[in-house]
Amino acid sequence: MAKEITPRAEDYSKWYLDIVKKAGLADNSAVRGCMVIKPLGYGIWENMKSVLDGMFKETGHLNAYFPLFIPKSFLSKEADHVEGFAKECAVVTHHRLMNNPDGSGVIVDPSAKLEEELIVRPTSETIIWNTYKDWINSYRDLPLLINQWANVVRWEMRTRPFLRTAEFLWQEGHTAHATKEEAINEAELMHEVYARFAEDYMAMPVIKGAKTDSERFAGAEETFTIEALMQDGKALQAGTSHFLGQNFAKAFDVKFATKENAEEYVWATSWGVSTRLVGGLIMTHSDDEGLVIPPKLAPIQVVIIPIPKPDPVITEHAEKIAAALKANGVRVKIDTDDQKRPGFKFAQYEMEGVPVRIGIGKRDLEKNVVEVARRDEKTKESISLDSVAQHVTDLLVEIQNNLFSKALAFRESHSSKVDNFDQFKEVLESKGGFIYAHWDGSAETEAKIKEETKATVRCIPNDAVEEDGVCVYSGKPSKRRVLFAKAY
Amino acid sequence: MAKEITPRAEDYSKWYLDIVKKAGLADNSAVRGCMVIKPLGYGIWENMKSVLDGMFKETGHLNAYFPLFIPKSFLSKEADHVEGFAKECAVVTHHRLMNNPDGSGVIVDPSAKLEEELIVRPTSETIIWNTYKDWINSYRDLPLLINQWANVVRWEMRTRPFLRTAEFLWQEGHTAHATKEEAINEAELMHEVYARFAEDYMAMPVIKGAKTDSERFAGAEETFTIEALMQDGKALQAGTSHFLGQNFAKAFDVKFATKENAEEYVWATSWGVSTRLVGGLIMTHSDDEGLVIPPKLAPIQVVIIPIPKPDPVITEHAEKIAAALKANGVRVKIDTDDQKRPGFKFAQYEMEGVPVRIGIGKRDLEKNVVEVARRDEKTKESISLDSVAQHVTDLLVEIQNNLFSKALAFRESHSSKVDNFDQFKEVLESKGGFIYAHWDGSAETEAKIKEETKATVRCIPNDAVEEDGVCVYSGKPSKRRVLFAKAY
Repeated sequence: MAKEITPRAEDYSKWYLDIVKKAGLADNSAVRGCMVIKPLGYGIWENMKSVLDGMFKETGHLNAYFPLFIPKSFLSKEADHVEGFAKECAVVTHHRLMNNPDGSGVIVDPSAKLEEELIVRPTSETIIWNTYKDWINSYRDLPLLINQWANVVRWEMRTRPFLRTAEFLWQEGHTAHATKEEAINEAELMHEVYARFAEDYMAMPVIKGAKTDSERFAGAEETFTIEALMQDGKALQAGTSHFLGQNFAKAFDVKFATKENAEEYVWATSWGVSTRLVGGLIMTHSDDEGLVIPPKLAPIQVVIIPIPKPDPVITEHAEKIAAALKANGVRVKIDTDDQKRPGFKFAQYEMEGVPVRIGIGKRDLEKNVVEVARRDEKTKESISLDSVAQHVTDLLVEIQNNLFSKALAFRESHSSKVDNFDQFKEVLESKGGFIYAHWDGSAETEAKIKEETKATVRCIPNDAVEEDGVCVYSGKPSKRRVLFAKAY
Repeated sequence: MAKEITPRAEDYSKWYLDIVKKAGLADNSAVRGCMVIKPLGYGIWENMKSVLDGMFKETGHLNAYFPLFIPKSFLSKEADHVEGFAKECAVVTHHRLMNNPDGSGVIVDPSAKLEEELIVRPTSETIIWNTYKDWINSYRDLPLLINQWANVVRWEMRTRPFLRTAEFLWQEGHTAHATKEEAINEAELMHEVYARFAEDYMAMPVIKGAKTDSERFAGAEETFTIEALMQDGKALQAGTSHFLGQNFAKAFDVKFATKENAEEYVWATSWGVSTRLVGGLIMTHSDDEGLVIPPKLAPIQVVIIPIPKPDPVITEHAEKIAAALKANGVRVKIDTDDQKRPGFKFAQYEMEGVPVRIGIGKRDLEKNVVEVARRDEKTKESISLDSVAQHVTDLLVEIQNNLFSKALAFRESHSSKVDNFDQFKEVLESKGGFIYAHWDGSAETEAKIKEETKATVRCIPNDAVEEDGVCVYSGKPSKRRVLFAKAY
C-alpha cells in the first residue's frame, strides 16, 4: 500500500480527500454530489448509529419511518421553512420510463407526468407534521417522541465526502409536546445527548450553544448546536436540536384537547445528526499517516498480525489472545492472509486507523511476549503473553481518553479572546480557530463580519459569562462574548 | 380500544388492513402508495434487521451504502434488467424549486432541468456494478461480499401496506466472485440463510426452490426463492437470491486478472428481503383478535399489568419479575399507566400481539401467584411468584415453537397433489393453498394456467422428487412436480 497522503501542513483539504480515499472510507459515484460509503466508512457510521439509537431509546424515543417523498405543496405551508429548504432539492416529476422508439434506450414517458411534483425529502418536518395531525387528538397522545433513521437529499453545489453531499444519511427526531416548557426541555435534552455522544464516543470536544437568528434552522424558534474545532482551525457544526414552537403545528393544524378540555396547538422539536459526523471524526483525530479512529467507534479495535506469517504455533497464540479480548468485549481481527508481508499490513492498518496492533513473532514468543503498537501515539512495547489481553483492553480506554485530551488541548490552544476587529482579523488569519468576541447582537453586524472575514457566529455558548463589553465590529455595547469561526 | 376487526372468514383482505391499522403497524401517507411505518411495525422490522444483519456478517458480508439515484442510461445497460425494472419508477428531472411569481407557493424552476434524468433506485445492481468496476482488478479483490440496507421505490399501481408499497425498506446483497461455482454457492447460501431466518425467527415455514424462466429476476440466470403460505391459501414470495451469471459484469465491463493472469468477467449474485416480511408475519400468525408476533421478533415480549392499578406492593413485585426476566434476556414492559383499566389494557396488548401478559393482582399476591396469559392460545394459568420468571422465559420458547407448528400444520393441510386440470381448478377454488402438479416446463403452458386460474408456478422445489408424470395442462411428459399457487 503506497502511502502518498498529502501532509496536512501542505494542503489540509487535499489531505482530507486522500484519507477518505486511501483508508477506503468513501468513493465518488456516477451521480453528482452523491458518495458511495465503503465498508470502513459505513462501519464507523453503524457504530455511531448503534450508540445514538441506544441513547435515544434510553430517553424514551421510538423509531418510525416516514415517506421519502414530500408533496411539493407541503413545503409552502411553513413560510420560513420553504425559504430555507425548498430551493435546491431533487424534484420527481414523472413515474414511468418507456423504450425510446428509436431503439436507443429508455426515455421518460411524457404521459406519466405526476399531477403534483414530489420532492425528495431534504428534512421531514412537513410530511411528519402532516401525519401527526392524525395521531394527536388529546393530551393523552403527548408527548410523542419519535425518531427516524433515513436518507435525505439537498442539491448542494459544492460537495465533499461526508461533510457535504447531495444525499446523506442521518437521524431526525420529531417530538410533539403539550407545553412550551416541555418542548424546550426536550430540545435541550437532545442537545445534551449529542454533546455527550461527541465527547464520550467520538472523543471530539464540543462547545454547546444557541444559534443566532440568521443561523437558525428554517422554521425554528431556537436552534441549539454543538460546534467542534477541526485541525485546520475551522469549526464544524456537528449536530443541532431545534425548538420549533408551534410553527409546524399551526402550518399543519395540529391541535390537542388539554386536560381542561381546551384546544391548543402542539409544541414541537426536531433534532438531527448525520454522516457528517464521520467527516468530523476524520478531521479531529487523523494524522499524516492516515485515519485515526477512537476505539469506541472503531469497527476493528485490535488487529493481530502473525510475523512473518501464520503458522500453527503463532495462530494458536493469536486465537487465544483474540478469545480473551472478545471475552472483554473487544472487536478483534486476526489477519490470516499469507500473501502479504507484515510491513504491508502494518501500513494498511495504520492507514485504516485500527487503534491497536498486536504483532506475534516466533522470536518474541520464545521470550513469552508480543509486540503491542498503538495507533494514536505510534509507540510500541513488548507485553507478556499472560497479561496482553488485559493490557490491551485497558489500552483501548487510554487511547480513547488520550484522543479526547489531545483534541481538547488543540482546541484550547486555538481558542482566543479578542477585543477589537484588527485583532479579530489577525487571529483569524494567523491561526484561525475559535474566537470569543463581543458582538452587538444585530444581523447586520454579523453579515458584515462574515462578508469581510468569512467568519460566522457559530453559537452563543451556553456557558458564556455575563460581562460588559463592546462589539468588535460596531463598538456598540454587548453583554457577553459569542463564538466566531470560519466553518465547514 | 374498540376491537372492530373484520373476521378473517368474512373478508381476509379487510381483516389484514384492520390489523395493520388497529395494531398501529402502519398508516397511509399523503403520498400515493407510500406508507408511514409506525413504531410497532418499525420495531418488528428493526428486530428482523438486527437478526438478518448478524447472519449476513457471520457469513462474511460487510455493509456499505450506494446512491439513491441511478442515471437513466444505466438502466439500459443490461437488456433483460431494463425490461423488468425500468418502467414504473420515480424520475427526478429537476434540482430546484422557485417561488411562484404569482405568490401562490413554489413551482419547479424550469432552468434547473437535469442533463440526464435520475431514477430513484428500484434496485441497485446497475449503480453497484458501475462502482465495482473501480473496486475489482484482480482475483485478490474477490470475493467481494457487500450488503446494503436501503429504501427503494417501484411505482406500483395497486398497493397494500408492507406487501406492496411504492417505497419500501429492504436489504440487497451484491457479491462478486471469481468463478461461476462460487457465485452459485453464494446464491444458495443466502437462500438458505433466508429460509433459516423465516423458519427460526418468523416461525413461518417456507418451501425453498428455484423460479421458472418467466418468474425469474430481470437480469438473473437463476432465482432462488422462499415461498410461504398465508392463511387465505395464497402464497407469499418472502425472499429471493439470484445467481446473475456474468450479465452485470458484461454490462458494466467488470473484469479481473486471474491467478494465471488471464482476464475474465466477474460472476455475480444479488439477494434481498424487504418490509414485505412484516406483512408475511402478520398474515401467518395473527387472528381475529389482532396481531400475533413470534416472541423472537416481538419488540415487547412480556407485558406486566398491575390489577386493578399500580400500587407500591404490586409495583415492587412487578419490578422484581421484570428484573429477573431481563436477566434472562427477555424484553419486558411494566404498564404503569393508572388512567386505563386492566380490561382495556388486556385488549390493547392482545391487539398488539405481545406474546405473554402477566397480571399481578392483590388477591393473587396473597396466594403467592400471578396470572400468566399467552397470546397465541389465549390461555391463562396461575404461576407461583418464585418460578414465574423461569416459567415465562420457557413459555416464550414454547410459543415460538407452537406458532411454527401451527403454521406448518396449516400448510400441510393446505398442500395438495393434483394430477389433472379439473382437479387443479377444483382444489384452487375450494381450499386454495399449495398445489403440487406436473408441468411440461414451457412458458406457454405456465402463461395459460395463469390466465385461466390466476395460479403461477411459485417454484421448482429443491426437494422435488424425480418421478414420471404428465403435465396437468398439456398432457406432455414431466419429470417432477412443481409448486403452484395464487400469490400476493
